[in-house]
Amino acid sequence: MTMSDEPAGAMHVLSEFQCLELLASRDLGRVSLVLGDQPEIFPVNYTTDGSTVIFRTSSSAKLARVTSGRISFEVDDWNATTGVGWSVMVKGVAQEVTSGVDPFAAALRSHPIQALAPGERQEWIAIYPSEISGRRFHRLPTAPRSNG
Amino acid sequence: MTMSDEPAGAMHVLSEFQCLELLASRDLGRVSLVLGDQPEIFPVNYTTDGSTVIFRTSSSAKLARVTSGRISFEVDDWNATTGVGWSVMVKGVAQEVTSGVDPFAAALRSHPIQALAPGERQEWIAIYPSEISGRRFHRLPTAPRSNG
Repeated sequence: MTMSDEPAGAMHVLSEFQCLELLASRDLGRVSLVLGDQPEIFPVNYTTDGSTVIFRTSSSAKLARVTSGRISFEVDDWNATTGVGWSVMVKGVAQEVTSGVDPFAAALRSHPIQALAPGERQEWIAIYPSEISGRRFHRLPTAPRSNG
Repeated sequence: MTMSDEPAGAMHVLSEFQCLELLASRDLGRVSLVLGDQPEIFPVNYTTDGSTVIFRTSSSAKLARVTSGRISFEVDDWNATTGVGWSVMVKGVAQEVTSGVDPFAAALRSHPIQALAPGERQEWIAIYPSEISGRRFHRLPTAPRSNG
């Protein structure tokens, strides 16, 4: 891809195929969930199984409460030299697959993945996507910060 | 800081001072807000004014709806060589400061910052923090992905 040919400030919508490729190319992303009326963001180690995102968390962590509602997952990257970056967002529903004995849950647990904040007991969470979207962006140069 | 002395899997809570220093050291973060019952995550260019986070967005973007509720902002980084990373989260309330004539709104708008996805009209959003938290983590090595 010759992404750096785009003018600064350009924004380009990615195809689902491109989103899935980028999603599979990384292993550190961020989960957003709502606790009360407050959205919160947590970085997570993750992997994918097709379009399903899998991560682990300590059973005592806030993230373990994720199974009660809708969730978003995001991964992005940015090249400081070219100014070109991208982000992919997965919206969906989370389901705990720590103890499921069905073949699909067992297959998800075969992925090598560790919780970013390990606890004594770790839960496996799968995000079943309802929507995957992504965009490529070209950051405009920003003036250096003054220390004021 | 000798952050790489920590054992893999360690997690360390950062002080508010450390969080503010890290927050001020970057300019690309992520905002999470709730649209309907769905949390969403958007990368944004940002800057800070003390503990206030400021970003810009197109008036037509979903992000411009942010002023109706609670919001979270997150920034993180990770060193692939040492395995050490950190994340800082700001929870708070967003307020549009595009046209406010008070000195504080005017001062916020003096920061050089561009929307990541520019539109014809750009709005200025300030996040007034109710809580700032952060942690330093050491990622455990993850086995390479098999292409299955």
